This record gives sequence, structure tokens and C-alpha cells, in this order.
Amino acid sequence: MTDRRADADKNHPNEFALTERIRRATARPVARVRVGIGDDAAVCESPQAPLLLCSDAMVEGTHFRLDWCRPEDLGHKALAACLSDIAAMRGRPLYALVSLALRPDLPADFIDRFYMGLETLAARLDVAVVGGDLARADHQVFVDIALAGAADAPATRSGARPGDLLLVSGTLGSARAGLVALEGAERNPPAELLDAHLRPEPRFDVARALDAPGLVTAMIDVSDGLAADVRRLARASACGFIIEETAIPIATAARDFASARGIDPLDWAWSGGEDYQLLVAVDPDAWSEQAAARPELKRLLTPVGRATAAEAGVQRVKSDGTREDAPDSGWDHFRR
Amino acid sequence: MTDRRADADKNHPNEFALTERIRRATARPVARVRVGIGDDAAVCESPQAPLLLCSDAMVEGTHFRLDWCRPEDLGHKALAACLSDIAAMRGRPLYALVSLALRPDLPADFIDRFYMGLETLAARLDVAVVGGDLARADHQVFVDIALAGAADAPATRSGARPGDLLLVSGTLGSARAGLVALEGAERNPPAELLDAHLRPEPRFDVARALDAPGLVTAMIDVSDGLAADVRRLARASACGFIIEETAIPIATAARDFASARGIDPLDWAWSGGEDYQLLVAVDPDAWSEQAAARPELKRLLTPVGRATAAEAGVQRVKSDGTREDAPDSGWDHFRR
Repeated sequence: MTDRRADADKNHPNEFALTERIRRATARPVARVRVGIGDDAAVCESPQAPLLLCSDAMVEGTHFRLDWCRPEDLGHKALAACLSDIAAMRGRPLYALVSLALRPDLPADFIDRFYMGLETLAARLDVAVVGGDLARADHQVFVDIALAGAADAPATRSGARPGDLLLVSGTLGSARAGLVALEGAERNPPAELLDAHLRPEPRFDVARALDAPGLVTAMIDVSDGLAADVRRLARASACGFIIEETAIPIATAARDFASARGIDPLDWAWSGGEDYQLLVAVDPDAWSEQAAARPELKRLLTPVGRATAAEAGVQRVKSDGTREDAPDSGWDHFRR
Repeated sequence: MTDRRADADKNHPNEFALTERIRRATARPVARVRVGIGDDAAVCESPQAPLLLCSDAMVEGTHFRLDWCRPEDLGHKALAACLSDIAAMRGRPLYALVSLALRPDLPADFIDRFYMGLETLAARLDVAVVGGDLARADHQVFVDIALAGAADAPATRSGARPGDLLLVSGTLGSARAGLVALEGAERNPPAELLDAHLRPEPRFDVARALDAPGLVTAMIDVSDGLAADVRRLARASACGFIIEETAIPIATAARDFASARGIDPLDWAWSGGEDYQLLVAVDPDAWSEQAAARPELKRLLTPVGRATAAEAGVQRVKSDGTREDAPDSGWDHFRR
């Protein structure tokens, strides 16, 4: 505005300039935001419904490698992973805070491309990026996204009862197949597998389709693999689950990709993680009624098992009909 | 609960166990939290007032060193820094999300001690820790705190007008003195200087004292030093500021500590950062009236200058009465 301010910008090239670039990249007007990026805190309209809050952190080397993913992909995935938690509560996302710690050796356009990927997804889902923080990290890039949302009738993990039907949305295993393709630097791996790993899509469509009262008893997103997440559901609901191996939906591309490498694709569906599908316990009568009336539900979701008494734990029925205690082999970053 | 669950815990020692430890460390019941740590997202009561959202990230090596601060101090400071932003909006903090990326070589009790420090401050200010994320980072510890709060009448950075009085709470420079003491591994440095650096206190007392209508026109917390933060205030309010050097309040311990080392303590107050005091523009008439009626205001806040027209930029009046353009030397992690 004045020469003096231009001087200030020259003296503080990075911090002011970066904040300004982020503000421009996320400047889409959202009526419910009164004060966005650039003050001590954002000032937003409070929802009329209960407030949902969650955050999701991703660390370079643990969750992603920058030689595998473009900055746009990282921006997309960091937000998508956090959004998936809001979807799993049957909520609507409203506001995002983005904290980013960057290595000084990253290319100058890293931050613009990161925010381009993030903002494209945010705009599509009507989420306002209202703040965050920027820091320097000499060794590893860190991203942490916090979301505020709202839910009139939140679907928690804790309401499943023995006898409930267990459903999973979409297919499992593709994200792990994509990761394997990237790790092995495969030539021309199926694009849908890379996309499944790099650009997951939070299943708000599924969550919305499940909004009939009395239908959902418990819900969780499958971020760490069926093995880990069905256990979380069991633990929170104080029940067990029995899962039919042959019923677990696996995408054809993932199945083919695994088989060609002598891998059982079921392992990827079971313990691969990062599919960001929804795992849902439903009241069996309500499901029969809803699924009969709305055929799209059967396209969106596949029954894979049932809730049982807690004492039974988590069991799998193998293709030959025998039962076994399910291997507990979900993804755990602290165990790698 | 059952043997099977105990087995699951043995197989997943870290993630389940860590989450459980965090849940226990922050399990203080808060009526407005319906679902806390342990689901996909927390479910909380929405405030009746506008929602404040902010986050603050701290990176090992950039913001802290673990040979200088105890895990308790880090937990305290990470939350305090973010709370300071809520104080600077004249808000009340409600809910915190804590994302933590940990090195695998940290002592086993690191996380418990971190949460002890954080939760002690959270409990004192009635903030509920409702969620977050845990990740592994091989090289640097990373903490990001996101806060949701509320403010009936948020104090932004953007309302200062030429003629407004500029005030600062408490004293400046002590946090930098504490950092210098830690960097120099000083023997027996004054405890108040170490505390200023390691355990800053968000100034909700000051923000509350300033709640008279029409009094505050703009407010910011001094996290990066007077130099950087007065510029932010100037930029957001489209005004300039003139600051009397001799009026800047510096604690005696910081003054003595600097002088003994041949350093001008004013430099620490000006550009040291991390004091987490409040820098406030007030209507001069409202201030005169309020300060006359409520003597505690003069104890909490010191007038250091005035807002001017934007063209004047940020100027300092030196002790000999001459004016100069203020050096723009606030803390910028990207410039180190």
C-alpha cells in the first residue's frame, strides 16, 4: 500500500508473503466465516447442531514420500483423511485449520501446489480454510489438519449390538495396492490404484445415504485396515464381530495386481489401510427395509458380517467355512 | 475385558495403549463434551456465540529443544501459545485437539509427562482436550494444537484508528532472556526468565479486564516480538504506529540479565518474541475513563505509543526524542 509496507515485505519475504499466498489460495468467500486467515483466530458462525472436532496428522517418511506424491496430492490427501473422520460421524464439515511445517529445501511452488490440491477438495465440499500455522522443520514435512463440523445425529463407534449387520462401503485393498506399486516403482501401474492411495475420496455420499433414523448403530472409517478398525468398533461397542472373508469387496484391479505378484489380495483388504471407506453396523430389520426401498444402498455398501457377543472377539469365516480368530494386523505407525 | 482383548493389546501395544493413556490423562469430565477422545471425531456442544478457531504448531529444533525443556513444559507451552491467540480475540477457549508426532527414541514416559503439563493448564482454564492424532516422526518431534473457542465480541487486529492509544500488557523481553540463558547453558539464571520462556501464561486476565464496550479497537498477542506484531496490527488496521522506546515495559530481571552481557534489553523486548503479552489499541477517551475508574487496568497495561496514519508506517521515538523508522526485526522462523 505504501512504500514503507513494500519495504516490510522485502524484509520479511517469507512469512508475510507465504501467509498472503495462502490467504489468496483459500480466499473463496464463505458467508459463515466472519474473519478468516490473518487474525489471531478465525471467527465463524457456530453451528446450530452439535459441533464435531477432529484432526489428522501426516508426517513425511511415515505417511508419505515426496518422490511419490505431488504437493497437490498431499494437500488433497491430508484434508481427505481428516474429512473421512467427519463422514464417519455422519457429519458435515465446515471449517479447516491447516498447520504445515516445511523443509527449507522444498521448491518455491510447493506451498501453492499443496494448497491448490487442498482447496480444490475443500471448495467441492464447501469447507472453508480459516486458519492454521506455518513453521520450519529441517528434516521432515509435517501436515496437521483440524476440522470443525456439525452433525444433527452423530454416528459414533459405540452403538453396535450383537445381531447387527456389518457393512463396508466401496472396495478395500486398492490403496495398499497403489502403495505397493509406488514402493516398487512399477511401470504403468493401474491409475485407479495410484489414485486410491494418493487421492482418496471421503465417503460423504455413503454417510448421507445412511441417514434413515434407526438404521446405523455404529460407524467408523477404514483408515488403518479392516483388521484394526473392526477391532476399534468392537472395543467401543463392547461387542464382537464375525466377518465372511469371501464377502469382503476387493476391486478387480487390486485383485489382479496382487495375484500377479503372488500376494493374497485379502491381506491388503484386511490390513492395508488408507482406503477411507466406511465400516457400518446397521440394525438388520431397518437395513432390509431400507435396502429394499432404495436400491442404491446395495450398490454403495456390501454386507461382510455380523456383530456378536463381546466374548467371541473378532472372527473370520474362511472360504471353506471354518472359523478362526481374526489376525490383528492393521496398520500401526508405532509398530513399523 | 476378555482374554481376546488383552491379546489385542499385546499385539498392538503402542497405539491402543497410548490412546488409552492419553484418554486417562485428559479424562476430566466436562459437561459440554458429549463424545471425547476415542471416536472418529469429538461431539461437543456448539457455543451460542461466534466460534473461534486457531492452531499453533511447534517443531523440535525450530521452536524447542528437548534438552532445555521438560515434556511437561512442552505440553504447557504448546497449549499456552495457542490459548494466547484465543485471549487476543477476547475469547474463551473451549476445546483442544492435540496432534503429536513422536520420535521412537523418546523415553516411555514422555507422552504422559507432556499431557500432564498440557492437562494441568487445560484444567485450570476449563478447556477440554477432545481429540487429536498420534504419529511417528523419525527425526523431529512435532506438536500442533488446534483450539475451538467462543467470543461474544471478538477483538480483531483490524479496528485500530489513528489517535488510538497503544498498550502492552505485562513486560516484554523476559522470554528471550530465558532463551539466551538456556542457549548459553548459564548457571543459575533467574527462574522468572526461564519460566517466561518455558511456561508462558496466556493473558486471559488482561483480555477480561478489557471487556468494556468501545474500549478495545484492535488486539494481537505478542508472539513474535513487538516489531513483528505491531506491524501485523498496522497492516490489518491500515494504520501506522509510533512507539516510545522509553515506555516499553521490561522486567528488571531481563534488564539486569541483558546489561550484564552488554546487550541492550530493548532489543529483546522489540524482537525477542514468545512473551505472549497482549498488544492493544484502545480508544483514548474510553481508556481515560476506564483507567480512572478501574486502577487495576494501569497495573495490567502500559501505554507505549499511538496509532497514526498509515503513511507514517511504524516509528520509534528514541530516548533523546528523535524519531526513526522502526527496525523490522521480529522473529521469523523462515528467515533463521
